[in-house]
Amino acid sequence: MVSCIVMTDEYLIRRTLSLAARAYGRTSPNPMVGALVVRNGEVITRGYHKKAGTPHAEAIALEKAGELARGATLYISLEPCCHRDKRTPPCTEKIIASGISKVVISMEDPNPKVAGKGISELRKAGIEVVSGIHEDRAETLNEYYIKHIATGRPFVILKTAMTLDGKIATPAGESKWITGEKARREVHRLRGGVDAIMSAIGTVKADDPSLTCQIAGYKSPRRIIIDPGLDISPDAKVLDIPPETIIVTRKLGHQKKKALLREKGVTLIEHERDRADLAGLMKDLGKKGVLSVLIEGGSSLNASSLDSGIVDKVMFFIAPKIIGGTGLFPPVGGRSFRRLANAYRITRTTIKKFGDDFLISGYVVE
Amino acid sequence: MVSCIVMTDEYLIRRTLSLAARAYGRTSPNPMVGALVVRNGEVITRGYHKKAGTPHAEAIALEKAGELARGATLYISLEPCCHRDKRTPPCTEKIIASGISKVVISMEDPNPKVAGKGISELRKAGIEVVSGIHEDRAETLNEYYIKHIATGRPFVILKTAMTLDGKIATPAGESKWITGEKARREVHRLRGGVDAIMSAIGTVKADDPSLTCQIAGYKSPRRIIIDPGLDISPDAKVLDIPPETIIVTRKLGHQKKKALLREKGVTLIEHERDRADLAGLMKDLGKKGVLSVLIEGGSSLNASSLDSGIVDKVMFFIAPKIIGGTGLFPPVGGRSFRRLANAYRITRTTIKKFGDDFLISGYVVE
Repeated sequence: MVSCIVMTDEYLIRRTLSLAARAYGRTSPNPMVGALVVRNGEVITRGYHKKAGTPHAEAIALEKAGELARGATLYISLEPCCHRDKRTPPCTEKIIASGISKVVISMEDPNPKVAGKGISELRKAGIEVVSGIHEDRAETLNEYYIKHIATGRPFVILKTAMTLDGKIATPAGESKWITGEKARREVHRLRGGVDAIMSAIGTVKADDPSLTCQIAGYKSPRRIIIDPGLDISPDAKVLDIPPETIIVTRKLGHQKKKALLREKGVTLIEHERDRADLAGLMKDLGKKGVLSVLIEGGSSLNASSLDSGIVDKVMFFIAPKIIGGTGLFPPVGGRSFRRLANAYRITRTTIKKFGDDFLISGYVVE
Repeated sequence: MVSCIVMTDEYLIRRTLSLAARAYGRTSPNPMVGALVVRNGEVITRGYHKKAGTPHAEAIALEKAGELARGATLYISLEPCCHRDKRTPPCTEKIIASGISKVVISMEDPNPKVAGKGISELRKAGIEVVSGIHEDRAETLNEYYIKHIATGRPFVILKTAMTLDGKIATPAGESKWITGEKARREVHRLRGGVDAIMSAIGTVKADDPSLTCQIAGYKSPRRIIIDPGLDISPDAKVLDIPPETIIVTRKLGHQKKKALLREKGVTLIEHERDRADLAGLMKDLGKKGVLSVLIEGGSSLNASSLDSGIVDKVMFFIAPKIIGGTGLFPPVGGRSFRRLANAYRITRTTIKKFGDDFLISGYVVE
């Protein structure tokens, strides 16, 4: 069988995006980027950004191509950098020096140091530039980076797992095993892709989770526990460090326990008021270079996260099980003052199946 | 462009199933059946059973084919009837008389009067018979008929509509417009396909629904309202007859109101105990020729329906909205004594999108 692939710009950009995604979970605070050098309709070299501090995708692909880059086309999932405030020279200079005659880009880099200036530099050097191919896909791939660079705050995902009848725990308190193995593995993959996981004392007390990523080759992100009254047990699994654990708690009181926790290596973020200010917390985390937060809490944290306006995306795992019962924990609790017209609306929804379970994902409309 | 369709048995049986489905909602208490006469690789005639009391699918196709049926192949979605206790002669006789040389059948008719005997008769007459092509699809198409013929009880569907966070109503009592227009239209299509809709007094009081099918060309099924204390308002829309309305209520008391309702044309089914016996009610409805019941109630009726073991299939419409709040009505209420290991399990799940809303459907594992 002969199978033909037409090497359109779209096809080649999709390949740069797949290449980019190979570094999933390893590039923060940088975006994931992939690049191809194409000559006479043939991909001659490839590159992707593997990790912050290592070479950029286009630098790798051009380096490999050497003299063959002259007159060739460079495909790249993100606009090349042009700023000169880092150790290595900007990629635009490398591209111009390589003799590349055309550059096809998926999306502009929203980093204000770049933001179209990379493209301008290339054009000024006489290189033909096409931009905006599969821009939406590139934006989804780097949604954490984009939110952070645009707002200074992390991209926040609210993840929950419930029965088909909307319960996150049984009356007996079971909640860990609502979904099956494949869904749980996807949660671990999500954990491996974010900079922080946020939970609350209720979940820590009920389930004593580790909140680590158990997939080999992925890092475990830092854990943030909302615990105003510092009720955490010194034996809680989230206090097994590393990874880093941050407890967000009231400033007042518990000085002895705080000292003990600090000794254990726990970071404390203290707040004056009775309850944590989640919006303020996100600002602080953003400043510390946290690009993404995965919320894995209960009814109450989910409700306050939505109410404080920090949630960008929701991911609801739904198990094909019905347990029945009123008064059990729903995925989003708190107090509902909302009429349907005022409900949080979820847009750009997608659905996937993991084993027997479904995952409905979507973005919170602001 | 030349497009080729290979006329396999599978393809032709799928066509009989599509033909059969044209009579959706109109054949009860008969099954939906479609038939094709195929001669030299060409479909020469088609037929489907349009309505109880009208000719069977194969009778129509054979009648149209006339002498051309001789030596041809008959494709039919259900085993032909062979019983002689009705006004018209059995289809097996017609097939044999027509000169058909081969019959391809999707599934055997579970009606004990047929149940393989139709196939035997054809074979005895020297006709080649193949059976079991896309049997699962034929079984799904006629799941109401099959359940009723096998057990004497109707096939019961529990339908609910909820927000993504598992609520069927807001604190303000809004529930009618959780899902959008396309999902609501699908509910009307479902209503048009069943013999009865069952609801409860709570829903009637909260929403005052008509519970009719609003799609032109479809019939509205009878309505069954579970109302032990006979709390129904004489102005409730479900008392606008036709279609038929049945109220299931306690035997004791309310004699005046009962007389009034009977005068209005309402049928009353009375029970001795405080609460309705749903399993017993299904037996009675089955005897009355009700093949299918669509439950459109609230948390409480949904819970008692599942607990009484009458539910065959669940259909959960999920709107991409989050209203938050604890203590709101979940899709299945009642008291949950269940650990996850004892949860009702839903199998053979499917998911569809209707506008912005999702529909997760599946079958209750017994």
